[in-house]
Amino acid sequence: MANIAFIGLGQMGAPMATNLLTKGHRLKVYDINSSAVDKLVEKGASAAKNPADAAKDADFVITMLPNGKLVENVLFDADTGVVNSIGTNALIIDMSTIHPFESDQIRTRLQSLNIEFMDAPVGRTSDNAIAGTLLILAGGTSQQVEKAHDILLCMGSEIVNTGGPGKGIRVKLINNFMSISLNALSAEAATLCEALELPFDVAMQVMQGTPASKGHFTTTWPNKVLKGDLSPAFMIDLAHKDLGIALDVANQLHVPLSMGSASREIYSQARAMGRGKQDWTAILEHIRFCSGMKNNSLS
Amino acid sequence: MANIAFIGLGQMGAPMATNLLTKGHRLKVYDINSSAVDKLVEKGASAAKNPADAAKDADFVITMLPNGKLVENVLFDADTGVVNSIGTNALIIDMSTIHPFESDQIRTRLQSLNIEFMDAPVGRTSDNAIAGTLLILAGGTSQQVEKAHDILLCMGSEIVNTGGPGKGIRVKLINNFMSISLNALSAEAATLCEALELPFDVAMQVMQGTPASKGHFTTTWPNKVLKGDLSPAFMIDLAHKDLGIALDVANQLHVPLSMGSASREIYSQARAMGRGKQDWTAILEHIRFCSGMKNNSLS
Amino acid sequence: MANIAFIGLGQMGAPMATNLLTKGHRLKVYDINSSAVDKLVEKGASAAKNPADAAKDADFVITMLPNGKLVENVLFDADTGVVNSIGTNALIIDMSTIHPFESDQIRTRLQSLNIEFMDAPVGRTSDNAIAGTLLILAGGTSQQVEKAHDILLCMGSEIVNTGGPGKGIRVKLINNFMSISLNALSAEAATLCEALELPFDVAMQVMQGTPASKGHFTTTWPNKVLKGDLSPAFMIDLAHKDLGIALDVANQLHVPLSMGSASREIYSQARAMGRGKQDWTAILEHIRFCSGMKNNSLS
Amino acid sequence: MANIAFIGLGQMGAPMATNLLTKGHRLKVYDINSSAVDKLVEKGASAAKNPADAAKDADFVITMLPNGKLVENVLFDADTGVVNSIGTNALIIDMSTIHPFESDQIRTRLQSLNIEFMDAPVGRTSDNAIAGTLLILAGGTSQQVEKAHDILLCMGSEIVNTGGPGKGIRVKLINNFMSISLNALSAEAATLCEALELPFDVAMQVMQGTPASKGHFTTTWPNKVLKGDLSPAFMIDLAHKDLGIALDVANQLHVPLSMGSASREIYSQARAMGRGKQDWTAILEHIRFCSGMKNNSLS
Repeated sequence: MANIAFIGLGQMGAPMATNLLTKGHRLKVYDINSSAVDKLVEKGASAAKNPADAAKDADFVITMLPNGKLVENVLFDADTGVVNSIGTNALIIDMSTIHPFESDQIRTRLQSLNIEFMDAPVGRTSDNAIAGTLLILAGGTSQQVEKAHDILLCMGSEIVNTGGPGKGIRVKLINNFMSISLNALSAEAATLCEALELPFDVAMQVMQGTPASKGHFTTTWPNKVLKGDLSPAFMIDLAHKDLGIALDVANQLHVPLSMGSASREIYSQARAMGRGKQDWTAILEHIRFCSGMKNNSLS
Repeated sequence: MANIAFIGLGQMGAPMATNLLTKGHRLKVYDINSSAVDKLVEKGASAAKNPADAAKDADFVITMLPNGKLVENVLFDADTGVVNSIGTNALIIDMSTIHPFESDQIRTRLQSLNIEFMDAPVGRTSDNAIAGTLLILAGGTSQQVEKAHDILLCMGSEIVNTGGPGKGIRVKLINNFMSISLNALSAEAATLCEALELPFDVAMQVMQGTPASKGHFTTTWPNKVLKGDLSPAFMIDLAHKDLGIALDVANQLHVPLSMGSASREIYSQARAMGRGKQDWTAILEHIRFCSGMKNNSLS
Repeated sequence: MANIAFIGLGQMGAPMATNLLTKGHRLKVYDINSSAVDKLVEKGASAAKNPADAAKDADFVITMLPNGKLVENVLFDADTGVVNSIGTNALIIDMSTIHPFESDQIRTRLQSLNIEFMDAPVGRTSDNAIAGTLLILAGGTSQQVEKAHDILLCMGSEIVNTGGPGKGIRVKLINNFMSISLNALSAEAATLCEALELPFDVAMQVMQGTPASKGHFTTTWPNKVLKGDLSPAFMIDLAHKDLGIALDVANQLHVPLSMGSASREIYSQARAMGRGKQDWTAILEHIRFCSGMKNNSLS
Repeated sequence: MANIAFIGLGQMGAPMATNLLTKGHRLKVYDINSSAVDKLVEKGASAAKNPADAAKDADFVITMLPNGKLVENVLFDADTGVVNSIGTNALIIDMSTIHPFESDQIRTRLQSLNIEFMDAPVGRTSDNAIAGTLLILAGGTSQQVEKAHDILLCMGSEIVNTGGPGKGIRVKLINNFMSISLNALSAEAATLCEALELPFDVAMQVMQGTPASKGHFTTTWPNKVLKGDLSPAFMIDLAHKDLGIALDVANQLHVPLSMGSASREIYSQARAMGRGKQDWTAILEHIRFCSGMKNNSLS
């Protein structure tokens, strides 16, 4: 059983800490909200006066906070910060979703103090936090990920070793960028569907068999752009044409599609720069080129 | 065995016609490209002088053409159009991907001539056209869909009855809008991943377990927005924050994200209009509101 | 005094026709709205049964219609179209704002019939139509523009010879694209101003002395990008940074800036493609490059 | 003659400091780049060891730095910051372009130390910095602006009193947002012009007489939306139609218009939300509504 300092007892942190207690670990907890602390104390945790107090004698210090500035304060405050009391064998695990460059700065600063730090942000919802079935994206050295493994498994059902320090928070960023933007794009499609007086369940049924719903990462890309094959299974020119029809319909029906129109201009740009007869998956190479990436293979 | 007129022998039409021949139907074919006609004739089709000639005595007239203007010409040309010769019991099946409002106009015009017409655009690729495993989105009356069923099954492995005349072409539009735009969004995410020096396979592995790859239609939406429950599993305010981090990282790393930035402004607008504390799936209700849809349930 | 057929008596067309009458010309007018016709008849025009009737014996046929499809019908209808009756010395002047490629098709079709046609769309508002102070963008051969000049001057106070057939409608397109989009961009800026609790008149006062209000065509561009000088007076990197601050402020204050965010990604792309240290006017070269224009001078 | 500490001797700061010297003021200067310091010393300034040293006995402390983080460090560093040595009657003038909320924080923090601070960012170019003809946007109390006036006039030819503390940096933000975004929009218009093979000088000549070049702030807005009159001089429906034509042309000609397409969707949204028959200047009210601003007058 480990001694764990848990700092940050919000909607996610509180059930995560509860699961650690349930699994038999000793917890010292801290939060600026004292009633959140009280609830954990009722479940067997002890209350810390401040982060430094929590971190004293801890094997692990877990932070679950809303942003990087708060993580920084909790760790480095001249009086009450974790670094004032933490032992040489302890490991700090930041499970917050923060800016990856802030996470890098924190890690670097802790390294200069010989303090171990890893990032391990979580996926899924507060329901999963309660059930202990979070997805945990572990970013650290092999030793750190191994050392943290059993602790993390108290809170989540799936631990992904993302391949090194800072990689956990980076994967989280990509995943959230994709899923959050996809949510908005999906809403545009569903609204256009409604404007066309087409039952959404019919559209869903069809899309579930196509990249519209299955995505491109495992369907269209692997055998084309990711292999360097840009010969057209579906031409960029035709994809551009189809988007044009969709935008025309949407504009006639008064459905503003801000993502859809941004998309159309991407295909237009790809055509202008010579990719009209390439496979639609070549859009990846186009975006890479426009990001200044000169070599043309991704995998 | 049916008499079929097949008009339009391009990358998709030629293998579709071939499959009809293989299954034993009698084909009269037409295309402006005579060498495309010759290839079908070698396989047993007879060559028509023009669309009217092809349609004579046909049970079914199938069109597979690049745009609605061509479909219109093929059907209605004063001298050579299908309507000059088509019999009263024949059914025209337009399998082209055209503008849905053009398809509506064609259907209406044919109705006034007592000619039967249905839309049945196809999904999947030219490989599927060759293999006879297309997805076919049948839009017509029940009787039309039933009548066409066996013919369509010669070309595709999955026939979806989309629920009425014009619905096939509408589903196609939604599906293509979604999959084509998603391709561009995916390319932005993958490029950001590369700029972060994060192995793409790690990101893919993670995303395959989340809405980033599985989509929202069957994951986050059904129990939230589609049921009218907007209580937050993941708040719009937090989704907006995460997109902000992604855009900041991308702009520091010189990765332009035109779809991602459009997405961020959608969330910003949703917050400004009072949805910050709602579940992120409420973006659907937001887009619907901004499209002038006043009632607040989709399903 | 000329014989003029005037077809299209809407919000703009009616006062334009009235001004022609006032200046002493003989008008035969046509509109599907008979009460619009009646008003002109009260002012001295004669009513035509249809466009062909209006065009009979006319020196000039002026069309002022909502879209290109209507212009086409009015001119080419097999029974009632202008081409059925127009004389060999007449000149058709289309003053409508239509799609330039439709205008080109109409001109080409008329040329094959040896009928003279020019485009002369108008600028300014319905107030100017009433006052006879429209801006008229004359697109035609030198002879056509000269021939039409006195007629056009009855309706407008400024006639610009745009340099050839089809150029009038093209200038109109560029002008409207720019002014309509600028209106939306200005609204984003003004709303951000309000969100910052900054009096708009102070912002306006400042902007009136800068390219923000004066535009770039005659301020920053002539001595930099239009001369091929991309050495930085204001670097793209800094412009990108400033847009980033504006977007951050806007997102904190809940002001969605969809044009502003599109703009930021353009600068981001320009940086990624190597222009960060160039003058901000190099954005023109960047957009040109991304449109497939290979040579690097505009003027 | 005043004692002035000048911190930040870059492309703008160096000539501004030079002009202060030329006008007879005593300068102590600081920059991390010692050769920049040397050049000012040659012109008569004295070199300071650090910001605190520069600020000792100064009447004015002027900062001209690349970002807010640097301004903060220069002012507040525990050892070398300006606040360690500054006298009670001195006034700090930050002329940098930084994030307005950072500027607010700095001002608040200095107020708690009873130190006077104002923002006075500059407009125009490095050529104007050399000539002493900058535009200076003075944000401070009346007393501060008055006190700083003669000093600022050594560097600029136009001092605008923006109406209070923090207003200078806010005006700068709005101005730059507008001019930088307008530059990109102008580039889209000019590129579309080129793709249409329309001489740019013809388009410029026309646009110089319209809101396309003159802007909307002083042309279309004052008598319409700013007065609360939304009756249509030019309807949003028509503006939307014209943008649709422009986008169709651009997409046919392979000119990607990311700002133009964002603009079109704004008009589409305004139509969907009931503004189609209003004047195009009502786009301002639309953007305000979508930013959560409920009252409907701006001025």
